[in-house]
Amino acid sequence: MAFLKVVPLEEALKIINSLPLKPKIEEVALEEALGRVLAEDIHSPIDVPPFDRATVDGYAVRSQDTWNASESNPVVLKVIGEIHAGEEPQIELGEGEAAYISTGAVLPKGADAVIEFEIVERKGDEVIITKPTYPQAGVMKAGTDIPKGTLLLKKGTKLGFKETALLSAVGISKVKVFAKPKVAVISTGNEVILPGEDLKRGKIYDINGRAVSDAVRELGGEAYFLGIARDNEESLKEKILEGLKYDIVILSGGASGGTRDLTASIIEELGEIKVHGIAIQPGKPTIIGVIDGKPIFGLPGYPTSCLTNFTLLVAPLIRKLLGGEFETQRIKKKLAHKVFSVKGRRQFLPVKLEGEIAKPILKGSGAVTSFIEADGFVDIPENVEILEEGEEVEVILFRF
Amino acid sequence: MAFLKVVPLEEALKIINSLPLKPKIEEVALEEALGRVLAEDIHSPIDVPPFDRATVDGYAVRSQDTWNASESNPVVLKVIGEIHAGEEPQIELGEGEAAYISTGAVLPKGADAVIEFEIVERKGDEVIITKPTYPQAGVMKAGTDIPKGTLLLKKGTKLGFKETALLSAVGISKVKVFAKPKVAVISTGNEVILPGEDLKRGKIYDINGRAVSDAVRELGGEAYFLGIARDNEESLKEKILEGLKYDIVILSGGASGGTRDLTASIIEELGEIKVHGIAIQPGKPTIIGVIDGKPIFGLPGYPTSCLTNFTLLVAPLIRKLLGGEFETQRIKKKLAHKVFSVKGRRQFLPVKLEGEIAKPILKGSGAVTSFIEADGFVDIPENVEILEEGEEVEVILFRF
Repeated sequence: MAFLKVVPLEEALKIINSLPLKPKIEEVALEEALGRVLAEDIHSPIDVPPFDRATVDGYAVRSQDTWNASESNPVVLKVIGEIHAGEEPQIELGEGEAAYISTGAVLPKGADAVIEFEIVERKGDEVIITKPTYPQAGVMKAGTDIPKGTLLLKKGTKLGFKETALLSAVGISKVKVFAKPKVAVISTGNEVILPGEDLKRGKIYDINGRAVSDAVRELGGEAYFLGIARDNEESLKEKILEGLKYDIVILSGGASGGTRDLTASIIEELGEIKVHGIAIQPGKPTIIGVIDGKPIFGLPGYPTSCLTNFTLLVAPLIRKLLGGEFETQRIKKKLAHKVFSVKGRRQFLPVKLEGEIAKPILKGSGAVTSFIEADGFVDIPENVEILEEGEEVEVILFRF
Repeated sequence: MAFLKVVPLEEALKIINSLPLKPKIEEVALEEALGRVLAEDIHSPIDVPPFDRATVDGYAVRSQDTWNASESNPVVLKVIGEIHAGEEPQIELGEGEAAYISTGAVLPKGADAVIEFEIVERKGDEVIITKPTYPQAGVMKAGTDIPKGTLLLKKGTKLGFKETALLSAVGISKVKVFAKPKVAVISTGNEVILPGEDLKRGKIYDINGRAVSDAVRELGGEAYFLGIARDNEESLKEKILEGLKYDIVILSGGASGGTRDLTASIIEELGEIKVHGIAIQPGKPTIIGVIDGKPIFGLPGYPTSCLTNFTLLVAPLIRKLLGGEFETQRIKKKLAHKVFSVKGRRQFLPVKLEGEIAKPILKGSGAVTSFIEADGFVDIPENVEILEEGEEVEVILFRF
């Protein structure tokens, strides 16, 4: 068995990024597009507004007919019809003619302005105008807001309510988005049971199944929790084979080294082990393999370790499959107090963020409560033994 | 008709907050709890770990048996059994006895420490120890991580993957959460058509239906888009009656004043108008009514105006129904350039945020593209006519 493939984090990431897995694209109805990521640039197929549009209720006129209008010399125009919003105008204005028009209606041929009804006087089929107007007054020209062909949204945009509204504005009812990667999630261990089950002595409730599944969902993927594999070849193999129906398989190890060895030998039998151990703390026992072109991750059993490795290794892959960059978000913070690290080991220390300060959570990886308090992980390089209070550190955010 | 109920924003908000609508609570399975808001405090029903647990693979011992151990004076203990993770131990250690134990397994009676297997020597059924250990070494005591009864999560917490994982850790499989408010969304107007439909001359694509529906969803509510009501009593009434099957009804007006008048008279016929017009810009035509105890909002037709009023008036109500506060998130920013406002009108000016700077978007409310660029709205009090460049302003965030 290839038990000696311990690699630095950068190499593990390079291997994951080169896995033969590509974003898939699917078309969804606009009603289902909220929260999805665009897989195409969107150009407007129409002008918005699609026609010269009245912006007030009033009278469509030929502006030059009004240029001599004044209180002492009013202009009288003949009202030859009415145009309501939603209608195609059936009239065309000639010299000395006007038409009643409502807000949002199409400006009729011949007209080039709309005068608000409040500032004119209507008498029978005539309208009396005492002030000149000018071309385009009271009118929004076709395409003023969005000219046809405008690049509206770029590939990779996550669609929020503003974006779906914009797509609706230009009449787009279907969009191409990146398919949600389907991730199989398997917990392992003889001692692990599911919430709701009776807690017999010696058993503990599963954490990683729920944690990894919901982390996948928050990232935008689809999670399929396949339950718990027991620490034997048959059970593990059955779950792994079931997991291969999906795009990615994530196992999280029980506490024992035996499960890891079993997982590794099953991966080796069915496919190939790419990485067995990463030179980071936590994460030394992490396995990365490929079976039938599908990545399979064996993450550590302790929840905080499992989720740290998920954040470092799996999250960038899911982001990439959703059309984003293969990367991890890092920010700079200042350390709350002095921290000792082990030379020769790259360490990821859980921290709570308070403003610009990163407060280390020093509970040990076995404590399940450390992940709930953690806002991120400080990346401590392997050649560093001491980080001083107030020192600037790089924090990887522990949220998606 | 009660056409004169124009009120200041504060009064409109007081009216909305006093509407007879209360958060509803439902129980969901933990697998479905991601993104939901807790409607109960959660205390841990168990100790975590639930038993004294080995944290290393090695030998469970009575620590006092090892206190005299040294290289020159090794202690030899008899190995009386093995305990694996997930098992209830069937043995009890007496003086001079040890048991093999794997990580995660239950410490047997009599034992109070675990020595790692790497630092001892095993010979047949004996283990040779050359260094003393101490009570609790290699052991995590029951309840060390989470003592039974600990307050884990407070009512009102939004459940992310860390929170669902914590619930899983203590074996909780169902939680009480606030029910998603069900919101009926209706667009109005003779000129409005749905995306995907053929754009006949005079028609425009609906924006508000999609915008309001997806804004409701982003806030955590359930949106039911009922389509477009035409500008006539029959059509409007039919949609409003259909909307009353849900918790809240939101109409967005067509451009014309006629629709508003119709909406108002239908609300008055079926229920009561609480507000007809708010002394803000945009939002003067906004209607708030109650029919059969259900709030009904008539929002302006222009998308940016519609969404501004949604943010100001409806979003706080949805937040409250989801167990949060009836409030709008405000932050302080500096104005990018001088802005003139109209005295006597409280104005909400769309702005783009760039760091600490708020850049006004001066396209006019008819431009559909102004909402897509807006990150927020500057609240300009009614007695203010001029805001200077660099002046500190209050911005209401336009995202949920």
